[in-house]
Amino acid sequence: MYDIIIIGSGPAGLSAAINAKIRNKSFKIFGNKNLSNKLDEAPKVNNYLGFYGMSGKEIRTKFEEHLKEMGIQITEERVNNVYALGKHFAVMVKEKVYESKTIILATGVEYGKHFDGEKEYLGKGVGYCATCDAPLYRGKTVTIIAYNKEAEEEANFVCELAKKVYYIPMYKGKYNLSSSINIINDEPIKIAGELKVKKLILKDSQIETDGIFIIRDSLSPSELVPGLKIEDNHIVVNREMETNIPGCFAAGDCIGKPYQYIKAAGEGNIAALSAVKYLNLIK
Amino acid sequence: MYDIIIIGSGPAGLSAAINAKIRNKSFKIFGNKNLSNKLDEAPKVNNYLGFYGMSGKEIRTKFEEHLKEMGIQITEERVNNVYALGKHFAVMVKEKVYESKTIILATGVEYGKHFDGEKEYLGKGVGYCATCDAPLYRGKTVTIIAYNKEAEEEANFVCELAKKVYYIPMYKGKYNLSSSINIINDEPIKIAGELKVKKLILKDSQIETDGIFIIRDSLSPSELVPGLKIEDNHIVVNREMETNIPGCFAAGDCIGKPYQYIKAAGEGNIAALSAVKYLNLIK
Repeated sequence: MYDIIIIGSGPAGLSAAINAKIRNKSFKIFGNKNLSNKLDEAPKVNNYLGFYGMSGKEIRTKFEEHLKEMGIQITEERVNNVYALGKHFAVMVKEKVYESKTIILATGVEYGKHFDGEKEYLGKGVGYCATCDAPLYRGKTVTIIAYNKEAEEEANFVCELAKKVYYIPMYKGKYNLSSSINIINDEPIKIAGELKVKKLILKDSQIETDGIFIIRDSLSPSELVPGLKIEDNHIVVNREMETNIPGCFAAGDCIGKPYQYIKAAGEGNIAALSAVKYLNLIK
Repeated sequence: MYDIIIIGSGPAGLSAAINAKIRNKSFKIFGNKNLSNKLDEAPKVNNYLGFYGMSGKEIRTKFEEHLKEMGIQITEERVNNVYALGKHFAVMVKEKVYESKTIILATGVEYGKHFDGEKEYLGKGVGYCATCDAPLYRGKTVTIIAYNKEAEEEANFVCELAKKVYYIPMYKGKYNLSSSINIINDEPIKIAGELKVKKLILKDSQIETDGIFIIRDSLSPSELVPGLKIEDNHIVVNREMETNIPGCFAAGDCIGKPYQYIKAAGEGNIAALSAVKYLNLIK
């Protein structure tokens, strides 16, 4: 049972982690080795007080040095769900369950990646966890839009039940897929149907399908944590970074604009200290 | 007429300033050459993401370099009052008035400096601006508790009207005071009286006095900005750092705990971007 589990390794998550460490709490931080994809994209950052004229990549190096000095390691596993169980949280990572007294969500935001029709057909043929919903598609046609290699496993599992599986890789590399899976190299544009999904329209083709699973690098917070209050696509928090779920805090881009490193880092600090305060209260 | 006037040169004020600069707004930042006294006091800071194991003074050097690179200069003048005048603000600095469309308060917090009886007798003999209230003390006895040299000027002005002036310097140095002023080197403990102030009790002595002026380095926000909403000694803001006064924003320790550099810097960023948004709206 951890004191704090942090989900996300951007500035908000890292700032929360260093504060959890300083406050001597047992914690785990889930994220990526490259910390944050956004750091790759920033040519020059001038508004992180104390650093001037650095690129996002140079700032990443500073962050990495900070983590190294403090002996903090990032766990590179994908969190599928977080369940609030009253006195603690269950964090689902594939077949494993981690338990924690508090959660800090620092999952960032994904920019404009929803497909046309995705929200409309969510739960009506569109889903985000193929292994969870596979039994519904016994003998049917399933399409998997995959943003990472982990989706291959899900596809292989689904194809044991489904009649036909289409796999649309949105990443490059070698695919470790069952030979019965159809790989389609085309760009998905629109999900169409009537009451339920009927087809996926791609740039140069279209396919008839009963179900579409979209396997992204990260889930949206509302998909990740059932019951979490969301407004305008952001997690609702107060100034203490408390969400509507006791013991669950959030920080960074996922709680709202401005999308800036220093703002996220400041909020990560607050979230960690609020979690520490909460831990003292429930002792 | 400035776009933004920032009051305070701690991490919140500096972060606001660099963002105002990046957004190409006309602005002025009032503060101190040493940026923040708190930076002197921190032996090691480990929770400012990107810097590890630095002292407060080393972090100050980083902040100074950042300001220098961006050509930002701090105006070392003491702001006495900020008046919200509907469409803009008047910032009173001694005999000068600066005008601005928006204000960012980043005044920090003062720790436990109120004297026993100070709040009780505020407006009943206790005040913070001797030159403002001097006419009330014609022919009477006035005591000035002074935290800086600027108070000497106020004392010299008051002694032209008052019967007797006591000056209690809380700082070291040479005093440029009228010869009729009584300098008392003792530590104030308690302000006492009945309906109004009657005396000041010091560690080794006590003096009879009709008025007591306390001239500190900075005013509390409620004294600085009439009408500003305060709760539990902190300025009330929402997550956009908006105070109850349109166009007036606040960030850093003055809006609440935790009192941490990275939290303050993050809030300064938000406050500046909220001010920019507000400026676009009133255009």
